[in-house]
Amino acid sequence: MQKKHETIAVVGAGSWGTALAIVLADNNHEVRLWSHNDQQVKEINEFHTNKKYLPEITLPDLITGYASLPDTLDGVETVILAVPTKAIREVIGKMREVLKAPITIAHVSKGIEPDTLLRISEMIKEEMPEHLLKAIVVLSGPSHAEEVSLRHPTTVTVTSENMEAAEKIQDLFINHNFRVYTNSDVIGVEIGGALKNIIALAAGITDGLGYGDNAKAALITRGLAEIARLGTKMGANPLTFAGLAGIGDLIVTCTSVHSRNWRAGNMLGKGKSLDEVLESMGMVVEGVRTTKAAYQLAKKYEVKMPIAAALYDVLFNGKDAKEAADVLMSRGKTHEMEDLVNILEERNEEG
Amino acid sequence: MQKKHETIAVVGAGSWGTALAIVLADNNHEVRLWSHNDQQVKEINEFHTNKKYLPEITLPDLITGYASLPDTLDGVETVILAVPTKAIREVIGKMREVLKAPITIAHVSKGIEPDTLLRISEMIKEEMPEHLLKAIVVLSGPSHAEEVSLRHPTTVTVTSENMEAAEKIQDLFINHNFRVYTNSDVIGVEIGGALKNIIALAAGITDGLGYGDNAKAALITRGLAEIARLGTKMGANPLTFAGLAGIGDLIVTCTSVHSRNWRAGNMLGKGKSLDEVLESMGMVVEGVRTTKAAYQLAKKYEVKMPIAAALYDVLFNGKDAKEAADVLMSRGKTHEMEDLVNILEERNEEG
Repeated sequence: MQKKHETIAVVGAGSWGTALAIVLADNNHEVRLWSHNDQQVKEINEFHTNKKYLPEITLPDLITGYASLPDTLDGVETVILAVPTKAIREVIGKMREVLKAPITIAHVSKGIEPDTLLRISEMIKEEMPEHLLKAIVVLSGPSHAEEVSLRHPTTVTVTSENMEAAEKIQDLFINHNFRVYTNSDVIGVEIGGALKNIIALAAGITDGLGYGDNAKAALITRGLAEIARLGTKMGANPLTFAGLAGIGDLIVTCTSVHSRNWRAGNMLGKGKSLDEVLESMGMVVEGVRTTKAAYQLAKKYEVKMPIAAALYDVLFNGKDAKEAADVLMSRGKTHEMEDLVNILEERNEEG
Repeated sequence: MQKKHETIAVVGAGSWGTALAIVLADNNHEVRLWSHNDQQVKEINEFHTNKKYLPEITLPDLITGYASLPDTLDGVETVILAVPTKAIREVIGKMREVLKAPITIAHVSKGIEPDTLLRISEMIKEEMPEHLLKAIVVLSGPSHAEEVSLRHPTTVTVTSENMEAAEKIQDLFINHNFRVYTNSDVIGVEIGGALKNIIALAAGITDGLGYGDNAKAALITRGLAEIARLGTKMGANPLTFAGLAGIGDLIVTCTSVHSRNWRAGNMLGKGKSLDEVLESMGMVVEGVRTTKAAYQLAKKYEVKMPIAAALYDVLFNGKDAKEAADVLMSRGKTHEMEDLVNILEERNEEG
């Protein structure tokens, strides 16, 4: 089957947006890569590089940098939205002003909005009028941008309430190095992607404290359990958390030196303050805001999330990281699965 | 509550048996650490070290090395069995000859017997007469011996058909650094512990090939899925594979430099032959035999296990590791959960 090539807008030229633009260009699509930073657009077009985010990479010729959002969106059917969670509303607000026809938005960000407690697809729905929106697709999974840009083998999941739209996005991205699977559980994929950043922060802390691989594996396992408890209570399929957008993404984020959230946690574990850490990173650390959202979600849904709660105390209440980790390690629970089993039973009883 | 201290036999003085002996001694139990190697027994008693397996450690005074199995077992109620899978039958055979009263055996090994396809607890049952056996307990989880011996925080799971016996073992081992949880799924805990070594070998191969963290996370995720498919078909609780003896142990074995199976795979990925690898390791690599058993189990239970099958071809049929990895990466499946869902549905239909 001959593949149809199209012109695709990638809104957001951070490391992930740029890496995905490379995958699309490798598949012979024409890519408009939008950035709010004129210097960056110039660099992309003159030197075919984006050195702040992907220092080792030369961008394919099919990628063009765009500074104008109206020009970026003009005539495109598919927009890859790759901006931090806290910029979603503002960027969608700007897109809404200039769109002339409905589009499919594939968002690739991982977060939950504090206070409203909305997932990213829900935020998009709130900001974008129905007549301008064909479908929202979510792309998630274990995928460090650096490795994707180097064409290392990578697998991701796409999901949507409109599976036809998800399959279209799967088609645009899939190639020999970049395998794309579908999953029909939007809630699970978004919750898994967002909350893994919390566990990555916590894993960075235990590594920073020198606790070792056994402790980290325990933390990841119990982190997955608390994500699954919350997600299941919110209506997700528990199996999603055993898949790429759950444990897969959690593993890569907690064990790889590429992970910003892990690096931030590592500095916290070594005794730096949150302000020092955020200043020295120079990039968005999604897990910090997500910790606040998770803390609120745990209260709202009455789910035990001891790791998120401990991290909240470290980040926002000045609690000592070692003390928090030690309390977590010595919790009194003695049977490892009872909580998730209880939630599933509750759901069954409720019908 | 005052803890009752007892005399416990640890049969097998490799790295894991020795590390567990240290935990028991830290809890003020008197430990008889048996080894078939007289030199090692001498080293333990004269120098309080076991340098081949735990080079950095001084053993507590409560550990005594024993060369005589009758003396080791004389009057003890609890035996920790820490020998490689292939030595289980022989060692139980010797124990059977000298036991005068029934014992509880807590086995801490991870494997499946090729050809018979028995789990370790099933092998023990075959070899040990009923009147000499109070209970069999399984101890498993993410626990590198090196870290346990250094008192790094560690969590493990104990399981048994006799939960009272499991709780007794939990009591003997639990302390501030070593957290012990119970789980009532013997099949799941034994299958998870055994089969993770296969995925660790495969993860070592992809790392040896330089494929990166995204590929490894995908491999671990899909590895867990195929372990869960097989285990569920064999009667395990699928949730066990989301716990310490499943994903927890899988993570630590696939991502830690301490893991023998990972190291062996890594050498295979770098082009060494199986014979060269086994020779240079000098310790048992359980995953090699387990791959054979898993390959046979997949046939017997008619479960798709593409990673185990690919590894079987690499280990026993001389297939090129890179070729096998590339075939795995480009499998045609497009929905990530359908297989496990099918197995659960089948089980529900059957009863």
